[in-house]
Amino acid sequence: DVRILLLGERGVGKTSLILSLVSEEFPDVVPPRAEEITIPADVTPEQVPTHIVDFSESEQTEQDLAREVQRADVVCLVYAVDDNHSLQQITERWLPLLQSLRPASKEDGENQNGEIVSAIPIILVGNKSDLLEQGNMESVLPIMNHYAEIETCVECSARTLRNISEMFYYAQKAVLHPTAPLYI
Amino acid sequence: DVRILLLGERGVGKTSLILSLVSEEFPDVVPPRAEEITIPADVTPEQVPTHIVDFSESEQTEQDLAREVQRADVVCLVYAVDDNHSLQQITERWLPLLQSLRPASKEDGENQNGEIVSAIPIILVGNKSDLLEQGNMESVLPIMNHYAEIETCVECSARTLRNISEMFYYAQKAVLHPTAPLYI
Ligand SMILES: Nc1nc2c(ncn2[C@@H]2O[C@H](COP(=O)(O)OP(=O)(O)OP(=O)(O)O)[C@@H](O)[C@H]2O)c(=O)[nH]1
Ligand SMILES: Nc1nc2c(ncn2[C@@H]2O[C@H](COP(=O)(O)OP(=O)(O)OP(=O)(O)O)[C@@H](O)[C@H]2O)c(=O)[nH]1
Ligand SMILES: [Mg+2]
Ligand SMILES: [Mg+2]
Repeated sequence: DVRILLLGERGVGKTSLILSLVSEEFPDVVPPRAEEITIPADVTPEQVPTHIVDFSESEQTEQDLAREVQRADVVCLVYAVDDNHSLQQITERWLPLLQSLRPASKEDGENQNGEIVSAIPIILVGNKSDLLEQGNMESVLPIMNHYAEIETCVECSARTLRNISEMFYYAQKAVLHPTAPLYI
Repeated sequence: DVRILLLGERGVGKTSLILSLVSEEFPDVVPPRAEEITIPADVTPEQVPTHIVDFSESEQTEQDLAREVQRADVVCLVYAVDDNHSLQQITERWLPLLQSLRPASKEDGENQNGEIVSAIPIILVGNKSDLLEQGNMESVLPIMNHYAEIETCVECSARTLRNISEMFYYAQKAVLHPTAPLYI
């Protein structure tokens, strides 16, 4: 089974992403935290049962967060493309948090500077792409190049449903077909 | 250096994708084949000089095709999301072609059935996403699950520039940070 955990600043759209995926339409009204979703194997991209776990600071504690990070197989780290603070918090708060909760060993691999951050694979998700005329990969490239545990990145929109299926496919794939570790 | 080769049926948008990336706007009129593009290291996602090579049946021969496949580090296999024939040709024509020109050895890895197709990493690209209301990942999932050499998939639009940067980033990444081979 694959456990996907969504993290990121308040209001980036974590709950909306999950509910958009499940109902195939954008929920105008969402609770702070979606219930855990279980998707059976035969309807998932990689044919593996998948659990999608939401996180919301308004309903959960730091201990809840630590527990969910320990149980997760992959983290979708979500920022909103129209909210620069939510992107800054990726490197200021969320990546350091994952490194402290799930530190990597040397076997897990190192980034180009020989620094290890976290052992759990991460998908970097820029939500609300509907609010931008064009994509903004440039804003995340420095992060992608520095953190070896970020498997890939994607810009998506819970509102238009663009790239939602891709996002969850990339998350599953990060668990089942991980990038080979580099030793540079 | 990374050499990216674009292949796929006529009219899927190979030339448009390349010219959209380079000029950051959609070219209303395109030649059959774009000249080879060289992007210096410092402006590429992965800081590696990158060459982007177009292929066009109207100007090139089977021998040209074979030569370009031998020289390439990664292939972007392009179909158009509004053209089901172009998607069928991915498995009917292009994947078998790559397997015959660049057959994999056992060390390169096997798919879930223990079958090896090709040794060169492939990005599956669904262009013209602007013509669909919603994404259509479901149409490619069977292909993704069967061919181990397809690193990832992406839906993009040369017209709206959506996911163009991501497509080229995924292609570079497939060369520089490949998925670990599976032995099942
Ligand atoms: N334009 C746009 N708005 C979105 C999108 N996704 C979510 N929103 C809106 O952003 C707001 C926050 O969405 P939520 O899903 O509650 O965000 P969250 O990350 O779960 O927030 P917390 O539970 O507080 O951590 C809501 O008003 C959503 O309707 C999107 O893709 N595009
Ligand atoms: N709507 C839409 N049309 C596109 C897009 N990309 C290309 N086109 C159109 O599709 C047609 C074919 O585009 P090309 O770039 O010439 O396709 P190609 O794959 O290079 O074709 P060949 O050189 O014949 O192999 C042109 O009319 C383009 O304007 C896209 O993203 N969206
Ligand atoms: Mg929420
Ligand atoms: Mg062309």
